[in-house]
Amino acid sequence: MEMINDEFYMALALDMAERAQGQTGINPVVGCVVVKDGRVVGLGSHLKRGTGHAEVHALNMAGSDAQGSTVYVTLEPCSHYGKTPPCSERLIHEKVKRVVVCCEDPNPQVSGTGISMLRQQGIEVEVGVLRERGRRMNEKFIKFITTGLPFVTLKTASTLDGKIATRSGDSKWISNEPAREIVHALRHRHQGIMVGVDTVIADNPELTTRLQVEGISPVRIVVDSKLRLPVGSKMVKDGLAPTWVLTTDEASQEAAERLEAYGVEVIRCGPGPRVDLLHGLSKLGEREIGSILLEGGGTLNGAMLEARLVDRLLMFIAPKIVGGYDTPGSFRFEGVERMSQAIQLHQLEIEQVGDNISIGGIPVWPE
Amino acid sequence: MEMINDEFYMALALDMAERAQGQTGINPVVGCVVVKDGRVVGLGSHLKRGTGHAEVHALNMAGSDAQGSTVYVTLEPCSHYGKTPPCSERLIHEKVKRVVVCCEDPNPQVSGTGISMLRQQGIEVEVGVLRERGRRMNEKFIKFITTGLPFVTLKTASTLDGKIATRSGDSKWISNEPAREIVHALRHRHQGIMVGVDTVIADNPELTTRLQVEGISPVRIVVDSKLRLPVGSKMVKDGLAPTWVLTTDEASQEAAERLEAYGVEVIRCGPGPRVDLLHGLSKLGEREIGSILLEGGGTLNGAMLEARLVDRLLMFIAPKIVGGYDTPGSFRFEGVERMSQAIQLHQLEIEQVGDNISIGGIPVWPE
Repeated sequence: MEMINDEFYMALALDMAERAQGQTGINPVVGCVVVKDGRVVGLGSHLKRGTGHAEVHALNMAGSDAQGSTVYVTLEPCSHYGKTPPCSERLIHEKVKRVVVCCEDPNPQVSGTGISMLRQQGIEVEVGVLRERGRRMNEKFIKFITTGLPFVTLKTASTLDGKIATRSGDSKWISNEPAREIVHALRHRHQGIMVGVDTVIADNPELTTRLQVEGISPVRIVVDSKLRLPVGSKMVKDGLAPTWVLTTDEASQEAAERLEAYGVEVIRCGPGPRVDLLHGLSKLGEREIGSILLEGGGTLNGAMLEARLVDRLLMFIAPKIVGGYDTPGSFRFEGVERMSQAIQLHQLEIEQVGDNISIGGIPVWPE
Repeated sequence: MEMINDEFYMALALDMAERAQGQTGINPVVGCVVVKDGRVVGLGSHLKRGTGHAEVHALNMAGSDAQGSTVYVTLEPCSHYGKTPPCSERLIHEKVKRVVVCCEDPNPQVSGTGISMLRQQGIEVEVGVLRERGRRMNEKFIKFITTGLPFVTLKTASTLDGKIATRSGDSKWISNEPAREIVHALRHRHQGIMVGVDTVIADNPELTTRLQVEGISPVRIVVDSKLRLPVGSKMVKDGLAPTWVLTTDEASQEAAERLEAYGVEVIRCGPGPRVDLLHGLSKLGEREIGSILLEGGGTLNGAMLEARLVDRLLMFIAPKIVGGYDTPGSFRFEGVERMSQAIQLHQLEIEQVGDNISIGGIPVWPE
């Protein structure tokens, strides 16, 4: 049984925000609940970049009930004129009595200013209710707003012996149906999906979001130092989502123009011979890609791990053993010398997904 | 809250039996609870091969209360004169009213005879209460009594990328302290522990049972086709538990005698050049080894899987990534061609052990 308290209403605000993950671009998801005299009088959620903030929607719904109300909001109300006027001003204008905030604004330059504006006007402000859940929900936004780089979720699917195919290359299917459905939900929640060109050549994947309901397909990003991406591949021709290629300065201009003729955006990141991945992520950030789902193969996964550019790892493990001496695994890189130098996964999240197991967490590199 | 019913008393009988796992050799563990007029009047457990059965201990404790009682026993009472007189006769003699049995005797030649003896004497018999738990508890006994071969539990500890060491061979430590304690509890519950000779040469392990309390160390079995086991290794010299070597007919007699001088038993299993593993297990069965904990390395694990001689798999996975191109994994064998030919793990048991994950199950091979 639930108790009715600040957490009860904040959880509702978080629920509303979480359902909108994937549709706000580089903006955070935010939920807001207005409560007056023991009744919910307003609900709002930020739904799309450039449109109204959660507080505005909720206060509009509350109307005159906003006066003297308590407002639960998952992120510190903004204090600056951006694409919309500052929410703190609106809350003051509506004469709300109390504001309960889940998380402070992660942007160090503005963090706390919204809260102090409210307090200066005599509004009671409480901060930190369900903070951990709120921070987890907006981890992508936090990374992007503080670094300019997209948040990278590395997702893998492998067997119990760590393989992503049999010795003959057969990889259909490793994970089960529910695991694959979860992957499509992840795609919906990321702005970009990234693969190496060898994966495209081998599998010719669509890399779109396919859900039981409509979803949002991310920008398809191919790491391809020599522009080997076949113009006949689905990603180039199907027009189902934008396709961008990260390549090197030395890649052939002719090949670039051939791809560009199909609407593919070619982004050059450093002299080569390999794509400078940090450079590439930085260019993606400039293009307002705030989150990327990295779906391998092993060489790209390994390079991203080595470059310490992975923010979250999610592994699906199928209860199978396929053996093979040289069959590839999920992470192909030179590796560490000592066990104590291993990349560690923190904040573990383990779930059984049918007969698959998902293991998620935050990679932490040794000093 | 627990209900008080047949399952309630059977669970107690199973609890008592489970605590004795590892101390009855090739015999099953059995628990017995005698209940009369709503009170527990007798408790018993089979504790050591050649000594009293669970029913006998419990009926002795019950004394004259046995008459008219209900007897809960985890395994069908025996009907034959073995090392002790048949328990069915004793139950009839004590004039018990009702017998509740968890599992039938797995030996197809005697299964059901104890139950029918009781029924012929007008004793009410119920069979199958908590049967699945009882069968799981005695899976080793069931395998041995029906095939003459030991039950093999393959245990591994690896990283998230399936490695058992770094590229330099460093393997200390992969798994965490609680996982390692569980491994020692597993050793206590198996009669043999099996490794390849390369593991002995590389790590010089003791392979004894080290618990917070006293435990039973299994017979140490080394698979060693060329008798390369160093006479200086701990397992040969420390005298902490018997050490046996499975080798081939072609291995040098001189090397065998050198080991035998230290009390090592050398068992020849087939012409070679590799140890015939089925032959070896059969010879171990003849020597009344009913259960084996297989602790690798990768080549022996792979060969045992390929030979379909593994009855249960238990993998500990540490939340680490170590990379490396040729670093070894837990299962080294040629592998299957198609993903649909993978060895599948059924009856999955997944647990979080601190920050490690354990994944257990029964391997099932494709047709």
